[in-house]
Amino acid sequence: MLASGPQKRVGTGATVTLILSNDDVEKCLSMRECIEALEDAYAELSAGRGVNRVRSDCLVPSGHGDALYSLKSMDGVIPKLGIGAVRIDSDIVTWPKRGNSMRRVKVPTAAGARYVGLVLLFSSTTGEPLAIMPDGVMQRMRVGAANGLGIKFLAREDARSVGILGSGWQAGAQLMAACAVRNIESIRCFSPDAEHRSAFARLTSSRLGIEIVPVAQPEEAIAAADIVMCASNSIDNIFFERWIEPGMHLSSIKLPEIEIAAIKRADRLVIHTRDDKPFHVVATDVTVPETAASKGWALGAAIDFKKTPVLADLIVGAVTGRRSRHEVTCFINNLGMGYQFAAAGAVVYRKAKESGLGHELPTDWFTQDVHP
Amino acid sequence: MLASGPQKRVGTGATVTLILSNDDVEKCLSMRECIEALEDAYAELSAGRGVNRVRSDCLVPSGHGDALYSLKSMDGVIPKLGIGAVRIDSDIVTWPKRGNSMRRVKVPTAAGARYVGLVLLFSSTTGEPLAIMPDGVMQRMRVGAANGLGIKFLAREDARSVGILGSGWQAGAQLMAACAVRNIESIRCFSPDAEHRSAFARLTSSRLGIEIVPVAQPEEAIAAADIVMCASNSIDNIFFERWIEPGMHLSSIKLPEIEIAAIKRADRLVIHTRDDKPFHVVATDVTVPETAASKGWALGAAIDFKKTPVLADLIVGAVTGRRSRHEVTCFINNLGMGYQFAAAGAVVYRKAKESGLGHELPTDWFTQDVHP
Repeated sequence: MLASGPQKRVGTGATVTLILSNDDVEKCLSMRECIEALEDAYAELSAGRGVNRVRSDCLVPSGHGDALYSLKSMDGVIPKLGIGAVRIDSDIVTWPKRGNSMRRVKVPTAAGARYVGLVLLFSSTTGEPLAIMPDGVMQRMRVGAANGLGIKFLAREDARSVGILGSGWQAGAQLMAACAVRNIESIRCFSPDAEHRSAFARLTSSRLGIEIVPVAQPEEAIAAADIVMCASNSIDNIFFERWIEPGMHLSSIKLPEIEIAAIKRADRLVIHTRDDKPFHVVATDVTVPETAASKGWALGAAIDFKKTPVLADLIVGAVTGRRSRHEVTCFINNLGMGYQFAAAGAVVYRKAKESGLGHELPTDWFTQDVHP
Repeated sequence: MLASGPQKRVGTGATVTLILSNDDVEKCLSMRECIEALEDAYAELSAGRGVNRVRSDCLVPSGHGDALYSLKSMDGVIPKLGIGAVRIDSDIVTWPKRGNSMRRVKVPTAAGARYVGLVLLFSSTTGEPLAIMPDGVMQRMRVGAANGLGIKFLAREDARSVGILGSGWQAGAQLMAACAVRNIESIRCFSPDAEHRSAFARLTSSRLGIEIVPVAQPEEAIAAADIVMCASNSIDNIFFERWIEPGMHLSSIKLPEIEIAAIKRADRLVIHTRDDKPFHVVATDVTVPETAASKGWALGAAIDFKKTPVLADLIVGAVTGRRSRHEVTCFINNLGMGYQFAAAGAVVYRKAKESGLGHELPTDWFTQDVHP
């Protein structure tokens, strides 16, 4: 696998750069580990010792009809772990409508009908590139872990039931996270496609060891749930104020899922990050999808991002969480951070090295002898 | 070199991702090609069809004394070429003083005493990762090419002599660029270290086929020069208003090199980009070097970045260049762009494919079957 043989260095330190697969990442990162890593990393972030660079999206025509090319990047560094991460997504994106909902859907146009998302890990003590891997598995794990921490620090201690809206790639990780931080006994799942939600319920039930009941209406999933989780790819509201019950914890993986009136009704609102939206750079000949994207972010206009408590401050106790079992709490995972990939990536890199996973390439391929 | 054999796809299209070296990049990118590629790319940028995401720097302690870890990134996409680029630098940085000048110096702490800077190229029509390469050679070529375009569109047509301040890695590319756009017959070079400037003059003379005279004072380099090029790594002023002569073209590769009074004295001032500084994210326990960095950018406070003409607009004729042979013109390459790496990268990728250069890795290693 290694073209020119692994180079040895006196003492310790990597002279190979690992190329890992999603399978490798999955083997190296349990939801419990991901939550632990993020909890500690958020404490560093709250103290200002860790840093995050807000996500940016470059949007241009892709050459395929209305589909756009999106080059997305986000960075973060955790000095305590000695790790910096850059996450890059290189996507062909469309915005199809289904019923009344408009969704953002990536099209797998890379060879073999594949998607392109990468995480690059660097040493913050030597600068060295440590590993390159696809972002898919880590992406859902870190989204799940953040919402899991929202539940850990906001939901009732005795929360037992979850109602989830959505049955896709993200929904599975959301349920893993809920089960990692509370003793969940009952899960109901709604999504618009009956077949899809049934298949999701069967598969996820067997993985979690908890029966998941697919239901035909969102209200059935939500009624009497201790924890409501939104895990859709909708950019329209899917949860409404009229569905709120006392003591509920509301959880959302993107800004527009929960109706503004419902957000305002919550006694405690915590968001993931104070950045209100990604940094967009859009070509002048792009119009339609910018409207769609900006519509999504516009739904957040009612939130004062600068004054709303963030997850990192909640974790270290700088802001107060739930004060009674009747309070309605709400966590909105409003925007992802490159920083999360540094935290989860540190776990994956350490375990992959221990287990000898991945393709080893000479680090020299990714370093240079000139001062750039 | 290719672990699992190159995968063939029906029809055309890449299913291997190239890992290129600085040597490969050097073989594939002449200064003339780089200038041509950038000139065309700037026209796309001026029209708003190409997009650039401003450079960001994450700065945290490196664990080595006062040295910082800097994770820098910048992105750009040129739909016309079907290329997106992300450039990443993962550096250990120090700010030593030499005499009265403070410089930003990277420390090669990667294995083998190497630096870490990467360019990743993606297809904007399929999303596929096309190539990964170190940034060193391309970095100096694109800096040179931008200042070369400044000369092409601002200096007198009959400019024959260059005075250059600096004798480092960047200075060589600056002279290559000047010679690519004007019939340069005489070059004088000043830098503080006599041995270094002599060695630089010898080496670069033989490469360019033009005699370069090393001189002991900056004034000797500048007197009667048609074109003055600043190519230092100083973050203090190195060129002063009192040195200006009628008809001169002033060229600078970073903001602080030319004294503000000299900038104001120029009849035509053009900058590289309207972004006045990188997007900095700095850990709270970092103090000293932030002061150094911010000092550099503060020197630009006298420039109205939003109203000053930029190179892209000059190239397409949207703003006027030199109006007479007596005017003093000034181009400040105030901040680099990820966009430049997309333009130069497109040339390198095409020629590397044609020549069969680089290590071929399966593109599957960098793509995935999950919707991230």
